[in-house]
Amino acid sequence: MQLPADPSRRRLLAQGAALVAATSGAAQAQTAAPAPAAAAEAKPFPAYVAWKNQAQMIQHTGTTIETKRTAYGTSVVTPVDRLYIRNNLPAPDASIVNDRDGWSLAVEGVRSPRVLTVRELKSLGIETTATVLQCSGNGRGYFPSKPSGTKWQVGAAGCVIWSGVPVRSVVAALGGLADGARFLTGTGGEKLPEGIDPKSVMVERSVPLSNLENALLAWEMNGEPLPHAHGGPLRLIVPGYSGVNNIKYIKRLAFTAQESEAAIQKTGYRISPLGEKHDPSHPSVWEMEVKSWINGPAPDAGPVKAGMVQIHGVAMGGMQAVKRVDVSIDGGQTWREARLVGPDLGRFAWRQFVLPLKLEPGTYQLACRAQDVKFNWQAEVTPENSGGYLNSGWRAHGFSITVA
Amino acid sequence: MQLPADPSRRRLLAQGAALVAATSGAAQAQTAAPAPAAAAEAKPFPAYVAWKNQAQMIQHTGTTIETKRTAYGTSVVTPVDRLYIRNNLPAPDASIVNDRDGWSLAVEGVRSPRVLTVRELKSLGIETTATVLQCSGNGRGYFPSKPSGTKWQVGAAGCVIWSGVPVRSVVAALGGLADGARFLTGTGGEKLPEGIDPKSVMVERSVPLSNLENALLAWEMNGEPLPHAHGGPLRLIVPGYSGVNNIKYIKRLAFTAQESEAAIQKTGYRISPLGEKHDPSHPSVWEMEVKSWINGPAPDAGPVKAGMVQIHGVAMGGMQAVKRVDVSIDGGQTWREARLVGPDLGRFAWRQFVLPLKLEPGTYQLACRAQDVKFNWQAEVTPENSGGYLNSGWRAHGFSITVA
Repeated sequence: MQLPADPSRRRLLAQGAALVAATSGAAQAQTAAPAPAAAAEAKPFPAYVAWKNQAQMIQHTGTTIETKRTAYGTSVVTPVDRLYIRNNLPAPDASIVNDRDGWSLAVEGVRSPRVLTVRELKSLGIETTATVLQCSGNGRGYFPSKPSGTKWQVGAAGCVIWSGVPVRSVVAALGGLADGARFLTGTGGEKLPEGIDPKSVMVERSVPLSNLENALLAWEMNGEPLPHAHGGPLRLIVPGYSGVNNIKYIKRLAFTAQESEAAIQKTGYRISPLGEKHDPSHPSVWEMEVKSWINGPAPDAGPVKAGMVQIHGVAMGGMQAVKRVDVSIDGGQTWREARLVGPDLGRFAWRQFVLPLKLEPGTYQLACRAQDVKFNWQAEVTPENSGGYLNSGWRAHGFSITVA
Repeated sequence: MQLPADPSRRRLLAQGAALVAATSGAAQAQTAAPAPAAAAEAKPFPAYVAWKNQAQMIQHTGTTIETKRTAYGTSVVTPVDRLYIRNNLPAPDASIVNDRDGWSLAVEGVRSPRVLTVRELKSLGIETTATVLQCSGNGRGYFPSKPSGTKWQVGAAGCVIWSGVPVRSVVAALGGLADGARFLTGTGGEKLPEGIDPKSVMVERSVPLSNLENALLAWEMNGEPLPHAHGGPLRLIVPGYSGVNNIKYIKRLAFTAQESEAAIQKTGYRISPLGEKHDPSHPSVWEMEVKSWINGPAPDAGPVKAGMVQIHGVAMGGMQAVKRVDVSIDGGQTWREARLVGPDLGRFAWRQFVLPLKLEPGTYQLACRAQDVKFNWQAEVTPENSGGYLNSGWRAHGFSITVA
């Protein structure tokens, strides 16, 4: 029996779950309770994410796992054990979270460059920000051309509360920016495969310097130490920017004159015309767009009972707050304004919306569209791009339900 | 080997953890990682809460378990696996969450009384509210007279996001209130011991009808189905009211002319003069009061390094929002205003506060005091009461730290 080096409870539990799985015949023999069928049939998750709520997620591969639409609930925040997983490289050894405060970050492009430990970062400031963390390819599965890459539906996204130190506070403590900085560049601490050009595989992303205002170096997620699988001990959070820009295991933060030369920046994650390869001249996948989708009733939850139905979902504005959400039950011919409910976690979070409707038996084509505070409406159709990024089209995210 | 009837993942993991514990010698032999010492020394949690993060909690008894002060983090919400446990009766069999939607609630004192299933409740409305859930006795351990009952420190509290149906929507769907209603009375679904008067042990609490405005019947907590140990499938949430009024496993909701005759209402949970038994003439433990405490630096975290220190904690207003928090490092002789940080989850939630200070080596007496939007200051000293309830005195919640 192999046991993990990571002494955290979650790891122990995960390993324990594997033990239970191994004895599940015995478990089922001793109980009259229904067996967790979905979990039993699906392929078990790899060890580094074995603690996830596997029955509530869809595993595409061991490094691409999304939340089921039915698993979102209606409480604004996404529980850590249901949050999607997307890693560009295998995660570093889990032992890096044995001494979280000892993890070090090199800060460059400031007047007094320094290597700071998390312990030192914690003395520089505390801020808490809720953001939508969304994979750049979320919704790719709804593009008709079937671009290559994971066919995410709605589940490569979550609303997370992060806690850490504002990047601007770190810069201030190190004497301010050096001259010429135009980008904020973060480098992940993944171990790179040997024998190939590091730039071809390393996770290093640059975002415009304007993000200095809101970016966070986070060591906490939803009130607990940042799990290793989500970038712990330390992750760069760039509110409003898609997942790849939120560098896990960050070990270097540089204020640079140029964008990173890493392939993931230069020729990866670009909005390129259909049929074309990514090129540095194409826009980088940075800011997210206004988007919403319905979580309940869910497309695969079976017939809905006639009568009052609470149509609910989530809506995000990308870089600004959501102002309004409309819901249609006739595929977009007519719309009704939904009510935004629950706590407002700030402009980078998503909002829940609810529309109560009395539905007679029949078939309904559900859709929703959000509007942000700058009066931008969610697109009806997102133009296709070769990487299948940032699909936010409301038509593609709609679905039909049967009311009986 | 016993395995639990509850098929949920958490249960399986919990059971798995026990298996791992049984083989922990092997685990430690195979890894160089430090052993989780605190968890290994403490008494294991009972099965119904074995999934809790045991290293981050203090177990007083199997039904009274609090969060460590150092475990709160700075992300506003309290993770479910760190949230305190306080049960007045043993929890019902875990099988009640096998069919969450099938759980039924009798609603009385309305024009059309009915038994409603959770499935039916879900069709009536969705609301999401963040509240401080706090045991009535939180802080009892700081009363000098050492009243009987669990000696809670700060950890019998958490900030939780609940999702469910507003009680007022249920009332509206059942034709409105019947005449004469003055209280909202909830009855828990715990199995009562046989052979004794049910009233002497049942969990049934009445709160003033004014709570109709904000009360919720919740089936979700922090984005996941309400865990069995916290009252799932269905719990009554009375925002601003102490824990005992938030009835777990609620099976009856009645709008009544009188307060419940149950002992827990009549002669329990009363603010009684020191040395006196609880009496119905004494005020019921209902509304919580303005209160705050410092979580970091923590009293037991060892010497703090000289230099910049981020003094942080949480502050609640009870029935109204927090307006301001002051921090003292000299035992209350002088005060400085802290900054409220992070998302504002609404008036029933707590806020985080932070005060950055440069501290020279020495000993400091830390304290904080909150003020609500109605200009009520947190008490310096809460007058003692025989049950040791609702201690919010700032002096008792202070502590000293050494800076080296």
